[in-house]
Amino acid sequence: MSLYGDYDPKNIFAKILSGDIPCAKVYEDARILSFMDAFPQAKGHTLVIPKVSARNLFDIRCEDLQNLIAHTQKIGRAVRSALEPDGIRIAQFNGEAAGQTVFHIHFHIIPAWDDAAPRAHASGQMADMAELKDLASRIKAKL
Amino acid sequence: MSLYGDYDPKNIFAKILSGDIPCAKVYEDARILSFMDAFPQAKGHTLVIPKVSARNLFDIRCEDLQNLIAHTQKIGRAVRSALEPDGIRIAQFNGEAAGQTVFHIHFHIIPAWDDAAPRAHASGQMADMAELKDLASRIKAKL
Repeated sequence: MSLYGDYDPKNIFAKILSGDIPCAKVYEDARILSFMDAFPQAKGHTLVIPKVSARNLFDIRCEDLQNLIAHTQKIGRAVRSALEPDGIRIAQFNGEAAGQTVFHIHFHIIPAWDDAAPRAHASGQMADMAELKDLASRIKAKL
Repeated sequence: MSLYGDYDPKNIFAKILSGDIPCAKVYEDARILSFMDAFPQAKGHTLVIPKVSARNLFDIRCEDLQNLIAHTQKIGRAVRSALEPDGIRIAQFNGEAAGQTVFHIHFHIIPAWDDAAPRAHASGQMADMAELKDLASRIKAKL
């Protein structure tokens, strides 16, 4: 899918928001949901999404984007406290050419360790739900 | 450098902010500077930085971060209009383990094309300043 086009209300994150698909939840309020990436590039790979129908950076309202980054910072701090990684990558992809695989805007919080290279994005290695829930609860405890 | 530590006022972006090192400028106001990355991962690789002494996501004030992402969105739109890439990556690295090379917080805006893989981050290939200035003026024209 390109940078342009309409929001697909049947995308995977829309189904997570509606509760049709389960997730390992880290945080939720009226405007934001955060959960563990089911195909993590590294231990503790967390996603933060807004509860609005926006595909990407270009069709989200500025105010919603600002609320999203504020929560990404807050949840990023909790990831740092919970897992004590050596570094943290923040990434947000727009369009398939840029690596976007789900067309609901999301920020990735990806921990990095000096001695471990990250796995490729969406590499197909699905994580164990119990393990993700354990990580989510460790991060939640630091919020 | 780790995720922790003090802001080094002699880092390269501090020198760009003070005018001691030149840049191909895209945008400037009282709180923000945007310029072309001198070691681009792709054509049109643009950086957005705040005029505050913050190393990373964890020591920038939330309000400054929100202003930074708002400008990243605005400048990202101009990059899209000027260069018409197939996709755009937004990235922000914290700590050397995550790929951070300059310890002044910055957002990367990295265009992507279907037929071109991005170059590695900070791969050492310095771009031609005249070429960067031409790209900067094309992006500026769309702001």
